[in-house]
Amino acid sequence: MADYDKSNVFAKILRGELPAQKLYEDEHTFAFMDIMPRGRGHCLVIPKAPARNILDVAPDSLAHVAVTTQKLARAVVKAFDADGVTVQQFNESAGGQVVFHLHVHIIPRFEGVPLSPPTTEMEKPDVLARNAELIIGALGF
Amino acid sequence: MADYDKSNVFAKILRGELPAQKLYEDEHTFAFMDIMPRGRGHCLVIPKAPARNILDVAPDSLAHVAVTTQKLARAVVKAFDADGVTVQQFNESAGGQVVFHLHVHIIPRFEGVPLSPPTTEMEKPDVLARNAELIIGALGF
Repeated sequence: MADYDKSNVFAKILRGELPAQKLYEDEHTFAFMDIMPRGRGHCLVIPKAPARNILDVAPDSLAHVAVTTQKLARAVVKAFDADGVTVQQFNESAGGQVVFHLHVHIIPRFEGVPLSPPTTEMEKPDVLARNAELIIGALGF
Repeated sequence: MADYDKSNVFAKILRGELPAQKLYEDEHTFAFMDIMPRGRGHCLVIPKAPARNILDVAPDSLAHVAVTTQKLARAVVKAFDADGVTVQQFNESAGGQVVFHLHVHIIPRFEGVPLSPPTTEMEKPDVLARNAELIIGALGF
C-alpha cells in the first residue's frame, strides 16, 4: 500500500485550503457534503488524523469516525425523512477508493429509489448548501 | 424504525442456534463468513449486543465493530492478496438491509473484478471453510 499523500483533496479541506460544505466537527472527525452525490443528502465523515484508508488508520481514530458516522446517519434520516441509509467505505482503487484520505459515505435512501452509480457530476452549490442546512438542523447542535 | 427482533438469523448465530463459519470473536464483536458472498472472502462483523442497525446501536458497540472491521479488512487483504477492500453497512430495507441485526460487510476486491450484485445463492460449505481458514491464519491469533 502507498504511503499517505497529504496533497489529497480531503487533507486540503482539513487544512482549509479547499472549501467544503461543513456539517459537523469535533476533536477527531470532520463531516461535510459529498460534492458528487449518489443521492440527496450524501455526505462524508473523515478522521482529522492522516490515514489513507481502513488498512492504515489508527484504531481509535476509526472508532471516532464510526461514532460520527452514526450521528450523521441519524441526522440524514431525520433531515430528509429517509427510509434507510447506506454506509460505504472504500479502500484502494480496486475497492472503489478515489480520494486517498479515509472517508465513510453516508447516503440517505428512499423506498423504490435505487442508489445512483458513482458520478463525476458536481451538485449545484446552492443545493448542497440547502441540504447541509437541513442536516445541521437535524444534528441538533 | 421497528424494534430489535431477536429471532433474526444473526441473533440465532450468536446464541449458537444456527451454525456459522466463525473467524473472530471478542467481548463485544463476532465475525464470520457471509454464506451468500459477493466475492471471495466476503465476511461480516456484528456486535454481540442487540442492535437493529446504525440508527439504534450504542455508540460504544459501534466503535468496537469498527475496530474489528479493521482487523478483518487487513486479514482478508493478506489472506487473498487482495488489491483493495469494500466495506458496506446497510440500514433498513431501503438502505439494503436484509438481516435486522447490525452488520458490516467486508469484501476483498481485485483489480478488474467488479463487485458481484447481492445474491441469494449459497456458497459451498467447503469453500467457506477453506476461505475461513485463510482469514483466521492471516488474523494471526
